[in-house]
Amino acid sequence: MDAVLFHNCILEFLGTLVMILLGDGVCACMGLNKSKGKGGGWVVITLGWGLAVMAGVFIAHNSGAHLNPAVSVGLACAGMFPWSNVIPYIIAQMLGAFLGAVLVWLMYKDHFDATDDPEGKLTIFCTMPAIENKPLNFLQEFICAFILLLLIVCISSYTGVVGLGGNSAWPITMVIVSIGMSLGGVTGYAMNPARDLGPRIAHALLPIKGKRDSGWSYSWVPILGPLAGGALAGLLGVWITSF
Amino acid sequence: MDAVLFHNCILEFLGTLVMILLGDGVCACMGLNKSKGKGGGWVVITLGWGLAVMAGVFIAHNSGAHLNPAVSVGLACAGMFPWSNVIPYIIAQMLGAFLGAVLVWLMYKDHFDATDDPEGKLTIFCTMPAIENKPLNFLQEFICAFILLLLIVCISSYTGVVGLGGNSAWPITMVIVSIGMSLGGVTGYAMNPARDLGPRIAHALLPIKGKRDSGWSYSWVPILGPLAGGALAGLLGVWITSF
Amino acid sequence: MDAVLFHNCILEFLGTLVMILLGDGVCACMGLNKSKGKGGGWVVITLGWGLAVMAGVFIAHNSGAHLNPAVSVGLACAGMFPWSNVIPYIIAQMLGAFLGAVLVWLMYKDHFDATDDPEGKLTIFCTMPAIENKPLNFLQEFICAFILLLLIVCISSYTGVVGLGGNSAWPITMVIVSIGMSLGGVTGYAMNPARDLGPRIAHALLPIKGKRDSGWSYSWVPILGPLAGGALAGLLGVWITSF
Amino acid sequence: MDAVLFHNCILEFLGTLVMILLGDGVCACMGLNKSKGKGGGWVVITLGWGLAVMAGVFIAHNSGAHLNPAVSVGLACAGMFPWSNVIPYIIAQMLGAFLGAVLVWLMYKDHFDATDDPEGKLTIFCTMPAIENKPLNFLQEFICAFILLLLIVCISSYTGVVGLGGNSAWPITMVIVSIGMSLGGVTGYAMNPARDLGPRIAHALLPIKGKRDSGWSYSWVPILGPLAGGALAGLLGVWITSF
Repeated sequence: MDAVLFHNCILEFLGTLVMILLGDGVCACMGLNKSKGKGGGWVVITLGWGLAVMAGVFIAHNSGAHLNPAVSVGLACAGMFPWSNVIPYIIAQMLGAFLGAVLVWLMYKDHFDATDDPEGKLTIFCTMPAIENKPLNFLQEFICAFILLLLIVCISSYTGVVGLGGNSAWPITMVIVSIGMSLGGVTGYAMNPARDLGPRIAHALLPIKGKRDSGWSYSWVPILGPLAGGALAGLLGVWITSF
Repeated sequence: MDAVLFHNCILEFLGTLVMILLGDGVCACMGLNKSKGKGGGWVVITLGWGLAVMAGVFIAHNSGAHLNPAVSVGLACAGMFPWSNVIPYIIAQMLGAFLGAVLVWLMYKDHFDATDDPEGKLTIFCTMPAIENKPLNFLQEFICAFILLLLIVCISSYTGVVGLGGNSAWPITMVIVSIGMSLGGVTGYAMNPARDLGPRIAHALLPIKGKRDSGWSYSWVPILGPLAGGALAGLLGVWITSF
Repeated sequence: MDAVLFHNCILEFLGTLVMILLGDGVCACMGLNKSKGKGGGWVVITLGWGLAVMAGVFIAHNSGAHLNPAVSVGLACAGMFPWSNVIPYIIAQMLGAFLGAVLVWLMYKDHFDATDDPEGKLTIFCTMPAIENKPLNFLQEFICAFILLLLIVCISSYTGVVGLGGNSAWPITMVIVSIGMSLGGVTGYAMNPARDLGPRIAHALLPIKGKRDSGWSYSWVPILGPLAGGALAGLLGVWITSF
Repeated sequence: MDAVLFHNCILEFLGTLVMILLGDGVCACMGLNKSKGKGGGWVVITLGWGLAVMAGVFIAHNSGAHLNPAVSVGLACAGMFPWSNVIPYIIAQMLGAFLGAVLVWLMYKDHFDATDDPEGKLTIFCTMPAIENKPLNFLQEFICAFILLLLIVCISSYTGVVGLGGNSAWPITMVIVSIGMSLGGVTGYAMNPARDLGPRIAHALLPIKGKRDSGWSYSWVPILGPLAGGALAGLLGVWITSF
């Protein structure tokens, strides 16, 4: 691994860590007892997650700020990222997501202990469907990631930025807020295998008081759905931005 | 039809599809039972719709990102868009709006089935007045679209962008949020014949559980009001930006 | 009056009209019965008013987009606007504010009729203090306008824009949202004699169902407070931006 | 002290004053009885505080707009600010924060008198933990300031702005909103020793009706936590932006 790729993986690790710390953090802040932000509602969840991604992007802009295996795969499909870097990026993203979730638990430890809601505690870490129906849940994650990647490619084509940083950061942040507000009601809009799996592993491993199982039977949906949606959007995005 | 116009129509189709998917999506996410976003309130509706338009605009910026027959007609009146392209654009917008609404229904299928509110289901697709009074409802749609088009022309005059994309995207997004927050309380601010008619047709055709009629007696208001308002604003906009 | 000044006054008239239509509109949308936006809360009021100013600014950016006698006077004190144009600008702003408020009433006519709250109807048009205490209310309006003008001068100094338009529009919009969220709880943050007096006259003249008196004994506070605060801030702003 | 440093200290004083006036102001506006903004919720608190910092930054952009001893120390650790200016900046920030809090009390005087909640009155001025646990509270303040400073350094590296002003202002504002929404639930996210200590002294000195003690036993946490977190982030930031 050359030095540039190594440095980029450090940035992906740190960016994803900060993204999950702030993203899972907003779920903790809304959902846990005695938190000053308890009950902030859907506007805070969706704005908070969008800004969490933005913060991670600012940290990782030199690496393209993917922070998401579906972005790495989608941009590779679009010819905007080398396939040989996809696996190292995904490993860094997974590690960052895992550690970010551990930090959220540590920082909100007293509030986790003061809360008696196994379902709610799990959905601070990772997504679960509002109504379980795996084909429709898969479709939802597929389309959410499809729209995200299509917009990343379209926005890149007019800002000239490769990746999510620089002048693309704010438009992409707002797209994420939009997808959350509009399409997040069904599955919680993971859109990102690392965002979902890393914290789910953390949930499984951490000694969280009164936790339920980590929802493994559902866990493949927010992994495969976003990867498939991102890949297809990368291909379509290349076509429509070539007009 | 030449290749440029054909490509632009594809962009208008895709952009309007994504706009309606996210725009009708935010109404579904707020209004349907068991959705994670249920009860998000007026701030989410208005921000969500503004950002839905923004996402569509980013996809269609090469075509000018009209996404709205009233925009196409208004810009043609302002001399900023050729009249010969108006009909092809409108057809593409209508098809995109219809398909976007079909997708919202499919994605939120389980939640539509879990909800028992025929009125609420209709207003996920298209607009209906809070208090039916067709002259005042027409005036509301006329003025909403008038302000929207006047601002599109004024913003174009200082960003130098023809259409809604590029540096104009964010100001126009925020104008749409503003119109919604301030003037949306009376009719639900369609401002866009395609946004209203395409999904209304979808509502009529889809096998939605427990649906009411599709409000056809009102349906001409959000078609003619925005077209008239947009046309007049195009003419006035040319005058005031010539100062 | 030369042609440039005349055109600028038309822009100030139209910009202030749109600002009040959207600004008083958000109060109507939140406060009147059967409005789709009823109960949107403080976040909608403050974002809605900020965006209303932004929309007016986009229309009037060629005239500097003052939309506010306190801005015209403050910028004149700062040497950034000729004193000879202050009176024509104020007349145009007053007329626009009056007509904007008339339009809000017309557009929300059925909702005014459906609402039985004389206090609430008055505060859709103009400001009234939460707790009447004229010295403290005056101080509040003085400081709100002082901060607004100080920030307009500071922001102009680094964007290079004279007035509120162009690259200054978004920062100033957000400053107005901030002042509203933070300091608006006492008097409703008029900050603008035209914004308050024009609609108050409209309230007095219009045949509003079940209206109370128009609060004339308080009406001088949101006129003199903002003018004094704006003038002082103009002088201070010149000093601190000279560092 | 040379003239430039003196002018910069005036800007830090004024910027911090305005930041606290608007920041503590949003807490007063939300929390005090009879305020028009009462009950606005977490979205208003977090947006309001972010925009309060933004307003202060616009005033102080010529001085780098630190407004925060943890920023001055962190940027000095990053080699982006001379150590010799740290103490004068901190003094100016402390004085501005103190005076800003005094003004909030004066402006909301009638509302303080109308409210019977000693805890709530204290947390308008300064932060207190939701659940007191000094090691975890310290960790929270450490990490919040660490993320803030890391992002300031990363954002500076791509905007080219030294400090928080200019093109960095909006991204940093949104980062502050994000940290608040996500991590503010535990301690109230002081992140700034001047923001916390200056108003705490004001609380101790002012004749506030029905006040409690000023929470001195906790007061070192939001001083030392942010300073330590900011310093470490300055060092790490230099490293990761060198990639």
